[in-house]
Amino acid sequence: MLSHVVGAAKRPTVCFRRGLQTVTLIPGDGIGPEISVAVMKIFEAAKVPIQWEERNVTAIQGPGGRWMIPPDCKESMDRTLIGLKGPLKTPIAAGHPSMNLLLRKTFDLYANVRPCVSIEGYKTPYTDVDLVTIRENTEGEYSGIEHIIVDGVVQSIKLITEDASRRIAEYAFEYARNNQRNSVTAVHKANIMRMSDGLFLRKCREVAENFKDIKFTEMYLDTVCLNMVQDPTQFDVLVMPNLYGDILSDLCAGLIGGLGVTPSGNIGANGVAIFESVHGTAPDIAGLDMANPTALLLSAVMMLRHMGMHDYGKKIETACFDTIRDKKVLTGDLGGKSKCSEFTEDICRRV
Amino acid sequence: MLSHVVGAAKRPTVCFRRGLQTVTLIPGDGIGPEISVAVMKIFEAAKVPIQWEERNVTAIQGPGGRWMIPPDCKESMDRTLIGLKGPLKTPIAAGHPSMNLLLRKTFDLYANVRPCVSIEGYKTPYTDVDLVTIRENTEGEYSGIEHIIVDGVVQSIKLITEDASRRIAEYAFEYARNNQRNSVTAVHKANIMRMSDGLFLRKCREVAENFKDIKFTEMYLDTVCLNMVQDPTQFDVLVMPNLYGDILSDLCAGLIGGLGVTPSGNIGANGVAIFESVHGTAPDIAGLDMANPTALLLSAVMMLRHMGMHDYGKKIETACFDTIRDKKVLTGDLGGKSKCSEFTEDICRRV
Ligand SMILES: CC(C)[C@H](C(=O)O)[C@@H](O)C(=O)O
Ligand SMILES: CC(C)[C@H](C(=O)O)[C@@H](O)C(=O)O
Repeated sequence: MLSHVVGAAKRPTVCFRRGLQTVTLIPGDGIGPEISVAVMKIFEAAKVPIQWEERNVTAIQGPGGRWMIPPDCKESMDRTLIGLKGPLKTPIAAGHPSMNLLLRKTFDLYANVRPCVSIEGYKTPYTDVDLVTIRENTEGEYSGIEHIIVDGVVQSIKLITEDASRRIAEYAFEYARNNQRNSVTAVHKANIMRMSDGLFLRKCREVAENFKDIKFTEMYLDTVCLNMVQDPTQFDVLVMPNLYGDILSDLCAGLIGGLGVTPSGNIGANGVAIFESVHGTAPDIAGLDMANPTALLLSAVMMLRHMGMHDYGKKIETACFDTIRDKKVLTGDLGGKSKCSEFTEDICRRV
Repeated sequence: MLSHVVGAAKRPTVCFRRGLQTVTLIPGDGIGPEISVAVMKIFEAAKVPIQWEERNVTAIQGPGGRWMIPPDCKESMDRTLIGLKGPLKTPIAAGHPSMNLLLRKTFDLYANVRPCVSIEGYKTPYTDVDLVTIRENTEGEYSGIEHIIVDGVVQSIKLITEDASRRIAEYAFEYARNNQRNSVTAVHKANIMRMSDGLFLRKCREVAENFKDIKFTEMYLDTVCLNMVQDPTQFDVLVMPNLYGDILSDLCAGLIGGLGVTPSGNIGANGVAIFESVHGTAPDIAGLDMANPTALLLSAVMMLRHMGMHDYGKKIETACFDTIRDKKVLTGDLGGKSKCSEFTEDICRRV
């Protein structure tokens, strides 16, 4: 079960207003709107005391040509602190940034958290997978700094800082402690990138000293990949620089059924967080009532736990897993023939 | 079956001396010597017209403190052009380079080729895997260029050049053509590293234009990882920058049984090549006659094909796979109880 408390222990808790709490909803593109409707319906059926504030994000160019997210979306997030986001299409225009990355950057969402847990009734070659990848979300290979040295010779800069490394390491250990997990594995290639991954690893080791109750191990990225496909049950919490997290989180999602069933959270300081499904916009089936809302729904469950609404989270999660285990009402990608709306109703019926 | 011709079509073929051809053998550390003996025995039983010239590699420091491989090893390789290498222990001394990397660099072995083929009788969750990872072996994240910008801020430089990208792309397509393979997939993160991976990808596209008989596709590294664990049979030849190859080749090895059964070749220009098992030195079982020589043996089979000795290669490969399929004489890691020498004898009996 995805029994994860995402917030970190010593961070100030968010102050919510009385009554309904407001969440910024970014439905996104393609199948985004219909899976958002599905989540809203299930939340309504479960009587979750949340109201949605819908915002669209299309990047706009501010003064000086800098890309930014629309002010009304920024304003909403600044006020609600919590976002739920569907898939966004990748812009094709040259120089246009990925909106996903721009959102992570705008709100300094430094920790990308992806629990990967085997889903009963959804068969893959792996059982009993129960791990969490925690990815540094702000720097590394994603610095965006690149140069042409001379014609035909290009460099990209991987930037690793002490502060960001310590911050993500602390997040990972606090996450492990708060979620009754036993071990944290730092994933690296410090045998090759001795200074950058070396710095990352050193910070992990230092932070580990303050968490004697959590077992700390370190492992090369290539070795993790090899061991992961041979026996993923040996892993618990994994923490790593940006690109390695991009790779490993997708790999792990593959083990339990793909991006259609894996939740994701981007966590910042002071309670700010955006939860998102990380699958694509699936334009080919958009609007056809065929999409699977599970990834967005389970992301919303992570969100509820982050907001301290554990009971609501548990109820919705259980209903979703029961529907999948039951195998009677499943969307096409899950091996069934039902529509998105039918799958949604089946979950609503159970909450 | 590993029916791969490793040499590229238009490259000058190696001129061998009459009679026995000489191969430089680098037994390596830990279990290296005993698995090398196993390979030599099997080659003898198969009457392969090869003589071995054994060399050890311990890095030495040349003038100016530059690390280099011992001159007698360099001299042997320069003469024989072909090497077979067991595992080398990773040096722990600060500043000491990885000997594996130093060898690749010394002989400009720009293509790292790892066929991953399901082995009949060796059960894993995957069947019918039959793909080849082709990794750029000289630059990228392995440039070794790193700096401290200010205290607590470190950068590593990923270097991508037009020449190296074109060279590896050409190798991959020629490999595909020479080995009756249908498609080449370029693996990249050009959505993030737009200039460096962008350059790599552009060269792949350009080269693809000259190989209209081979299907060309491009895919993000994270997507490849996800698809790979869900259905590896969709892949054929994959080509990619250095680090991505490090990761993917280990992942793929995991799918078919791990580094104990996966061969590897490092290919340079003008026929120069070193074939190696990429597993560790296993110091815990070194000298105990327990090691599994399969990875080194299959690397030696790749070597035979590279040298044009296809019949000998086929004979030895078949014998090895027959022994594994038979399940009667297997080493511990393969699920049996036999010694390395017994496994070796069983293969010798069949060649
Ligand atoms: C959309 C893309 C820029 C992004 C990334 O590379 O981080 C995605 O793969 C992810 O993992 O969220
Ligand atoms: C030993 C190590 C330096 C090497 C690498 O990172 O390339 C290894 O993992 C490999 O794949 O050959």
